[in-house]
Amino acid sequence: MTAAPTPQLDPATVDLLGVLAYGELTAFERLATDARFAPTIADKHALASMAAAEFEHYRCLSEHLRSSGVDPEEAMRPFVAPLDGFHDLTPPNDWLESIIKAYVGDGLATDFYREVAAFLPEGRTRELVLDTLADTGQASFAVAKVHEATARDPAVAGRLALWARRLVGEALIQAQRVAVERDALTGLLVGGSGDLAGVARLLSRLTDNHTARMKALGLQPS
Amino acid sequence: MTAAPTPQLDPATVDLLGVLAYGELTAFERLATDARFAPTIADKHALASMAAAEFEHYRCLSEHLRSSGVDPEEAMRPFVAPLDGFHDLTPPNDWLESIIKAYVGDGLATDFYREVAAFLPEGRTRELVLDTLADTGQASFAVAKVHEATARDPAVAGRLALWARRLVGEALIQAQRVAVERDALTGLLVGGSGDLAGVARLLSRLTDNHTARMKALGLQPS
Repeated sequence: MTAAPTPQLDPATVDLLGVLAYGELTAFERLATDARFAPTIADKHALASMAAAEFEHYRCLSEHLRSSGVDPEEAMRPFVAPLDGFHDLTPPNDWLESIIKAYVGDGLATDFYREVAAFLPEGRTRELVLDTLADTGQASFAVAKVHEATARDPAVAGRLALWARRLVGEALIQAQRVAVERDALTGLLVGGSGDLAGVARLLSRLTDNHTARMKALGLQPS
Repeated sequence: MTAAPTPQLDPATVDLLGVLAYGELTAFERLATDARFAPTIADKHALASMAAAEFEHYRCLSEHLRSSGVDPEEAMRPFVAPLDGFHDLTPPNDWLESIIKAYVGDGLATDFYREVAAFLPEGRTRELVLDTLADTGQASFAVAKVHEATARDPAVAGRLALWARRLVGEALIQAQRVAVERDALTGLLVGGSGDLAGVARLLSRLTDNHTARMKALGLQPS
């Protein structure tokens, strides 16, 4: 059987798919790990289902790289240190912190995917990035659980708000690291945004959406 | 839409599906957790893929219970303590121990599924149990990795053989606990095997298969 000819991917797109794929793979591992500490079987089921959805995203991204003639491992390798670094520096201390991490992380990732998809030419890669936007169910689950917890003990809200802020801070530090090291990917974002002012506006949109998510949780955004 | 009438499940079958479902769910969590410590992205990919396959098994079993009018949480609850107990008492100390645990655990589970399927009446439940027999890829991956490791350092073989023996010992202790507490399930196994001598022969077949797996790994079975 001869494979259909596949379009070549440019280095920036390979980087983009690599960082998304490794992001999904690590999200899968961390969610599945956190599921072990779920207080009830229903909570465990919810977190494990989200983890399985992240794995499916990873599998699709990885398969797309492979079918385009790119070794997924090679594409992911530059992003192992920043993504592992993010997770190693932000181990949740309890079940609620796990939920916030899933919600904040998934929210930022989804917003980022949506922004980036607009920069890609129409075609399979763009479709795939848009597919991974599909809600994995974190949002409504997290909102319900956090509201339950803060209704029981209002003092929890301050701690969780600080935790969410720390997560965003650590994510920005690692994103900065990636931006410095990966010229092609940075070029894609700058080119897609128009210029550096465009990148600043993109970051501002991401921050606004994060603030809206914090409000949905009933937490102070800063 | 009115659902098609679903056959009622007897208590022994509910127990069986409950223990299988929670077994798959915990296998998923532990494999996914162990994937974090994989030395290469390829190893991580392999373990995460196995974990995702276990989750899919869990999802099918859980869905079958629900569509038969049984709350999956209720069905799994009696098996939380023995299965969590098994995993809490057998945390792998390194990557190779994780692989052995996946291989030994999956092998025992698969053998057990095959034996039990023979006791079930023909129908959806039996098909489902047979479906979960599908190889999740542990076997060839584990055999390759363990052979690589023992070729590099033959001294590793003794430690891994002891580890495998401990896993089987702990699994038997928990199985014994389940047998004492769950009369209906035990009845299904004894009835299906014919009598207690039949159960002894079943255990002996499970042990023989375990020994064969240890040999495939190049490890002393005892």
